[in-house]
Amino acid sequence: MTGTMKAVAKLGPRPGAEIIEVPIPNPGPGEVLVKVKVTAICGTDVHIYNWDQWAQSRIKPPLVFGHEFCGTVVELGPGVKGVQEGDFVSVETHFTCGVCRFCRTGRGHICQDVKIVGVDRDGCFAEYVTVPAENLWVWQTEVDPEVAAIQDPYGNAVHTALACDLVGKRVLITGVGPIGLAAIPIAKKAGALQVICTDVSPYRLKLAEQLGVDVAINVAEANMCDAINEATDGWGVEVLLEMSGNESAINDGLKCLANGGEVALLGIPSRPITMDLAAGVVFKGATLHGINGRKMFETWYQGQALIQSGLDLKPLITHRFDLTQIDEGMELMKAGQCGKIVLYPNGSDD
Amino acid sequence: MTGTMKAVAKLGPRPGAEIIEVPIPNPGPGEVLVKVKVTAICGTDVHIYNWDQWAQSRIKPPLVFGHEFCGTVVELGPGVKGVQEGDFVSVETHFTCGVCRFCRTGRGHICQDVKIVGVDRDGCFAEYVTVPAENLWVWQTEVDPEVAAIQDPYGNAVHTALACDLVGKRVLITGVGPIGLAAIPIAKKAGALQVICTDVSPYRLKLAEQLGVDVAINVAEANMCDAINEATDGWGVEVLLEMSGNESAINDGLKCLANGGEVALLGIPSRPITMDLAAGVVFKGATLHGINGRKMFETWYQGQALIQSGLDLKPLITHRFDLTQIDEGMELMKAGQCGKIVLYPNGSDD
Amino acid sequence: MTGTMKAVAKLGPRPGAEIIEVPIPNPGPGEVLVKVKVTAICGTDVHIYNWDQWAQSRIKPPLVFGHEFCGTVVELGPGVKGVQEGDFVSVETHFTCGVCRFCRTGRGHICQDVKIVGVDRDGCFAEYVTVPAENLWVWQTEVDPEVAAIQDPYGNAVHTALACDLVGKRVLITGVGPIGLAAIPIAKKAGALQVICTDVSPYRLKLAEQLGVDVAINVAEANMCDAINEATDGWGVEVLLEMSGNESAINDGLKCLANGGEVALLGIPSRPITMDLAAGVVFKGATLHGINGRKMFETWYQGQALIQSGLDLKPLITHRFDLTQIDEGMELMKAGQCGKIVLYPNGSDD
Amino acid sequence: MTGTMKAVAKLGPRPGAEIIEVPIPNPGPGEVLVKVKVTAICGTDVHIYNWDQWAQSRIKPPLVFGHEFCGTVVELGPGVKGVQEGDFVSVETHFTCGVCRFCRTGRGHICQDVKIVGVDRDGCFAEYVTVPAENLWVWQTEVDPEVAAIQDPYGNAVHTALACDLVGKRVLITGVGPIGLAAIPIAKKAGALQVICTDVSPYRLKLAEQLGVDVAINVAEANMCDAINEATDGWGVEVLLEMSGNESAINDGLKCLANGGEVALLGIPSRPITMDLAAGVVFKGATLHGINGRKMFETWYQGQALIQSGLDLKPLITHRFDLTQIDEGMELMKAGQCGKIVLYPNGSDD
Repeated sequence: MTGTMKAVAKLGPRPGAEIIEVPIPNPGPGEVLVKVKVTAICGTDVHIYNWDQWAQSRIKPPLVFGHEFCGTVVELGPGVKGVQEGDFVSVETHFTCGVCRFCRTGRGHICQDVKIVGVDRDGCFAEYVTVPAENLWVWQTEVDPEVAAIQDPYGNAVHTALACDLVGKRVLITGVGPIGLAAIPIAKKAGALQVICTDVSPYRLKLAEQLGVDVAINVAEANMCDAINEATDGWGVEVLLEMSGNESAINDGLKCLANGGEVALLGIPSRPITMDLAAGVVFKGATLHGINGRKMFETWYQGQALIQSGLDLKPLITHRFDLTQIDEGMELMKAGQCGKIVLYPNGSDD
Repeated sequence: MTGTMKAVAKLGPRPGAEIIEVPIPNPGPGEVLVKVKVTAICGTDVHIYNWDQWAQSRIKPPLVFGHEFCGTVVELGPGVKGVQEGDFVSVETHFTCGVCRFCRTGRGHICQDVKIVGVDRDGCFAEYVTVPAENLWVWQTEVDPEVAAIQDPYGNAVHTALACDLVGKRVLITGVGPIGLAAIPIAKKAGALQVICTDVSPYRLKLAEQLGVDVAINVAEANMCDAINEATDGWGVEVLLEMSGNESAINDGLKCLANGGEVALLGIPSRPITMDLAAGVVFKGATLHGINGRKMFETWYQGQALIQSGLDLKPLITHRFDLTQIDEGMELMKAGQCGKIVLYPNGSDD
Repeated sequence: MTGTMKAVAKLGPRPGAEIIEVPIPNPGPGEVLVKVKVTAICGTDVHIYNWDQWAQSRIKPPLVFGHEFCGTVVELGPGVKGVQEGDFVSVETHFTCGVCRFCRTGRGHICQDVKIVGVDRDGCFAEYVTVPAENLWVWQTEVDPEVAAIQDPYGNAVHTALACDLVGKRVLITGVGPIGLAAIPIAKKAGALQVICTDVSPYRLKLAEQLGVDVAINVAEANMCDAINEATDGWGVEVLLEMSGNESAINDGLKCLANGGEVALLGIPSRPITMDLAAGVVFKGATLHGINGRKMFETWYQGQALIQSGLDLKPLITHRFDLTQIDEGMELMKAGQCGKIVLYPNGSDD
Repeated sequence: MTGTMKAVAKLGPRPGAEIIEVPIPNPGPGEVLVKVKVTAICGTDVHIYNWDQWAQSRIKPPLVFGHEFCGTVVELGPGVKGVQEGDFVSVETHFTCGVCRFCRTGRGHICQDVKIVGVDRDGCFAEYVTVPAENLWVWQTEVDPEVAAIQDPYGNAVHTALACDLVGKRVLITGVGPIGLAAIPIAKKAGALQVICTDVSPYRLKLAEQLGVDVAINVAEANMCDAINEATDGWGVEVLLEMSGNESAINDGLKCLANGGEVALLGIPSRPITMDLAAGVVFKGATLHGINGRKMFETWYQGQALIQSGLDLKPLITHRFDLTQIDEGMELMKAGQCGKIVLYPNGSDD
C-alpha cells in the first residue's frame, strides 16, 4: 500500500510525543500490514512519553510507539500463511526469535531474544502498522473492538490468574491497575470463592467494584492484614495475584497467604525489595510463579473463551480519544484517574 | 516398661546440656515406646544447646532434646495399629494435629499446629523415647542404622530435590550442610544432567565431592555466577535447590537460573532479605517452591526407594560418639568440621 | 444412648428390605453416634434392595443399609477429637484403613482396604448410625439439610469434574444420573465455556436443563457425534466427564474428544468393554483419569466452597419420603423417573 | 545442488522396494538439503515395504521412503534461520502445519494436519533429502552418528517414559521392540527403582538385559501377573509403559498396576481391544497418557541431556548395511531377529 499516514512518535531523546505524517510501512516476509481500528495506552507508553530512566536506556528514537491494538489485515507480505486480508485481528506484542530453547519448547513468552512492537520497532499509535503474521490473533467470534484492543493487558491478567488453581479459592489481587482490574472477572469466572483486592486509589477501587470484586480494601486507610483476616474469617487467602510490584503489598500479601498457598507475581518492583522469605514462603510451603507476557497462544485461547462465556471487560475502558489527542490521554494516565484509555487513529465510525 | 534411663537434657534457661537419669516414659494412647539405637545431632540441637535467641523463645525446660533417630519398638500404648513390638523404625519428627485443613487434605507437613519431638516434647537423646505410632516409619527392607537415624534431614533433601523435575536438568545446590550434601546423590539418581554446589567450607565441599557432585564451587574464592556460567556453557541452571538461607546465595542463585527455571527453597534466612524479584523471578517466569519438613509419607516412600536403588548416605556420617559425649559432638558441630555426627545411647554393639 | 430405633434392613439373601426396630448402636473408640436428619437413596442401595449379582457377592445380611446422609452428632466414643456433640455433619462414606501406603500418602480414596458404611457395616437408613469421627464433615457454614444429605454423590461429581482443567473448555458429560447432573453446575462454576450432556432419559435431560446445561442431547434420538460436532463448530470437546459406564457413550465420547483432551472416568462398566484405544487415546495424546470416591478431604473443601459460591443442588432433589416409605422410593429409582430421592428417618420437622 | 542420487523407493502399489537414481532434490523456502549419513529402518517402513492394508490406504507411490536419519546440512533454501551449512543434524520427522490450535499452543506433536517425511513426502532412504529447517535438531555436543540416526524411536521412548514420574517407582515396560528397549535405560536414568519388561521374543528379552533391565519376563512361558507379583513383593508396578499395542499385554499390565498408578500408552493396537476399564482404571484411580510422536522440542532436549549423562543406545543397534542392501534389512525386520538396523546411503567411511 502506498501513501502516508498519521502517527504518534518519539522523535528525539526528550519528553513528550509528536504527531507526524510518515509513509505507510510495507510488510516484510512473513509479515502483514494492519489498519489500526482501536489502540490503547499502556503504562509503558507513559514511560516512553515521559522519557524516564527506563525509556532512555531502552528506546532508540525516532520511534512510533504504542503496542496495544486491534485492526484489520489489509496486506500480506511474502510467505504468510494462516491469515487473510480482511481478517479482524488483535496482536501478540512480543515478537519472539523462534530459534532459542524457549521458543522451540512452546515457551515463547520467555524467549531470550524477544522484541516488542512499539518499543523495539515501530508500533501502533498510527493508522497502520506491520507485524509478523504469526503474532496475529484472528477473531473468529464477535468481539467489541475496544475489548479487542486491550488483549495485551487482559492476556497478562489471564496468564497471571490461570497460573493458579482458583476453583473454590479465596483470591487476593494486590494492585488494581488495568491488569489487576481485569483479573477480577477472570478469577470469578474461573470459580474463585471470593475475590479481594487492594489499592490506594479510590478511583480504581470503585472500578474494581464495578468489575465484581467481593471485597475492595483501601490500604491507605485500613490495615490490610486485619481487613483480609476479617473478610476470610481468619483463614487468609489461598491465592495471591500480585499486580503492584510494591514491597508492602508483596509482604502483606504473603502474610495473608494460607499455608500451601499459590502466588502469581506479575507486578515489577522498580528495585530490589526486602522480603520475609522464611515466614512468607518457606514455612508456608507456598509456591510462587513469576509471570511474563502471555503464553503463546494458550493464554489467548483461554482469554477468548472467557469472553465467549460472558466475561465483560467494557467497564475497564473509561476514556476514548482520537489518536491526535494523545497528550490528553497521557495526562489522565499520569493522574491515575482512568481505567483503560483507547485511541482511534482512523476515526471511530470506520 | 519400668526403670530409669540416661538422657541428655536442658534443665534450665542456660547454655549447655546435662546428662541425667530419668524414668523410662510410658507410651500414651496411640503411642509407642522406642528403644533408641542411633541418634544424630541436628543444627536445631546446637541452637538449643547454645541457648540462643530462637531457643529461648521456643524451648520450655526441662526438656530431653534430640529428634533424629532410629530404634526398635519395645512397647505399644493403647489403640495402636499398623506396628508391632520389635519393628525397626525411623520417626517422622513432626507430630501433626490431625484435624486442621492441611492435615485433612494430605498436607500434614504444613499442619498449622505441629509439635516437634525434642523441641516441644521430650526427644531422643535418651535410651528410650515415646512417639505417636502414626509417626513411625517401619523399615521393611535392610537399612544401615546410621542411615536410618538421619532420615529427618535426608527427608528434607528428598522433599526439596523432588519438588522439581530434575531429569536431564542442570541443578545448583547452594549450601552443602548435611541436607545440601544429601541432595547431591538424590539429584544424580533422579536423572540430573549436572549437579553443581556452592559453599564457603572446604571441609564440606570436599564431602560434596565424595557424594558425587560434578562441580563444587567455593564462593569465598570464586565468583559464583562466573563459575556457573563456565560450568554450564553459558546456560545457567534449570533448577536451584536453596539450602543456605543466605542472601547472597539466593540472589546469585536466581541470577544463574535459566528462564523458566524451578527453585526449591529450604534454607531459612535468619532475617528478611533483599531480593531482585523482577529480574530473578518475574521476567524469568521462574517457579519457587517453599519447602517445609517432609511430605507424610510420600517423601519417606521416595527416600526409601532411592536407598533401595543404591543411594549411599554413609559418606555423610563423619563422626560417632556415645550419647554421653554430647559435648564433644556439639563442639564439632559449632566448628563446622563435620558431616553428620551420630550418637549411641545404648552402646554401639546392641 | 439407650433405647431402640427404626431401621431399613436386608435381613436375608433375598430381594426387598424390611423395616425393623433395633437397639441404638454405641460408638466405639474414635467413633461418634449421629442422629440422622436426611438420608438419600443411591443406585448402590437399589442393587442391594434388588439383591442382584453384585449384592449377593458383597453384602452379608443382616445389614442396615444406606450410606448417603447428614445429621447431628449426639454422642462421642472414647478418644474422639476435632468434633463435638451438636455438630451438624455430613459423612465421608469410605472408611479407610489408615495404615496402607495410599492412606499414608494422602490418597485414602484409593485405600486398599476400604470399608463402606451401609455396605460393609450398618448404614444410615435408620434413626441413628455410628461412624468414625475422622469421617465427619462438620458444616461450619449454613447448608440445606437435603443438600448436606447428598454430599457423597455430589463429591463424586466434584472429584470427577475437578480432575480436569475446565476453565474456558468445552465439556461433555456422558450420562446424567444424579452424579452427572451434579457435574453440570460444577463445570459451569469452574469456568467451562460450554457444558454438553448426553443421556437416553427425557426426564433426566430435562433436569439437566434445569441445572444449567448448555446443550442436552438425547442419544436415543440423535447421532451423538454429529450433534456435538454441530454444537462445537466442529471442534469437539476438550474434556469428557464419563458418568455412564456405557460402552457406546465411552467410545463416542472419545471420538468427540479434541486432540490433547482430558477424560475423567467415573462410570463403571458392568463388564469389559471394547475400545478404539489407538484413535481415541493414543493418537490424540489424550489423558484419562480413573476416579474413585472423593479425595479426603480436598474434594469436600472444594465442594463446600462451590456451594458457598452459590452452586445450587436443590433442583437435583425431586422426591421426599419418610424412611418407612422405602419401597416407594425404590420403585421410583428403578423406573428412573427421579433425580435424588431423600428420606426422613426422624420426621421432617425435627 | 545438481546431479543425481541413489534412493530406495516404492514405485507402484505392490510389495517390495526399488533402488533408483533420481535428481537430488532442491530445498524450498524454509527448507534445507541434508546429506544423509546414517538412516534406520522403522516398523512403519516394513509396512510400506510389505504394502499392507495401512500402507495401501496411506502411501501414494512413487515415494522415496525412510524417515529415521541423521546427516549434514549441505544447502539452505530461502528464508532459513537458526541453522548453517555443515551442521550435523537429526530430524524431527513430523512436519507440522504451524497454524492449528495445537501448533499455536506448543503442542505440535498432536498437530491436526501433520505430514511425515518418508510417508507423506519423499524420505531419507536416499543420499540426500529435503526437510523444513524448523524440524532440524542441530547437535551441539558430540554424538555417535548411529545414535543420531535413531532419535525418532528414541524420542518416542523419552516422550513415553517421561510422561510419568519415575523417581523411586517400579516400572513395567510391555513390549521391547526398539522403543521399549530404549525406554529401559531412560527409566533407569530417570530414577526408577526397578524396571521390568515383558515380551515373547527371546532375542529382544536378551537385548533388554544388555540395556540394563532388572527383570525380563517371557510371557510366552510365564504368567505375567504372577511373575510381576513375585518381582515386586506383591506390590505391583506404579508405572506402566505400554509399547506393544497388544490386548493381553494391556490388560495384564493394568492388572499389575498399583492403585493410583500411571500408564503411558504408545503401542498402537491394530483394532479395538476389550478392556476391563472398571477394575483396571476406574477403581484404581489410575491415570493414562496417550503418547504420540515427540514433544517439539522438549523431548529432544531431554533425550540429548540423557545421552550427555551417559545413556548408551549403542546396544540397541544390531545390524549395519549399505542402503542398497535394503531387502536384507527388511527380511531381518520381518523375522524380528534384530534391534535397530542402520543403513549407510553414502558409505560408512564418509
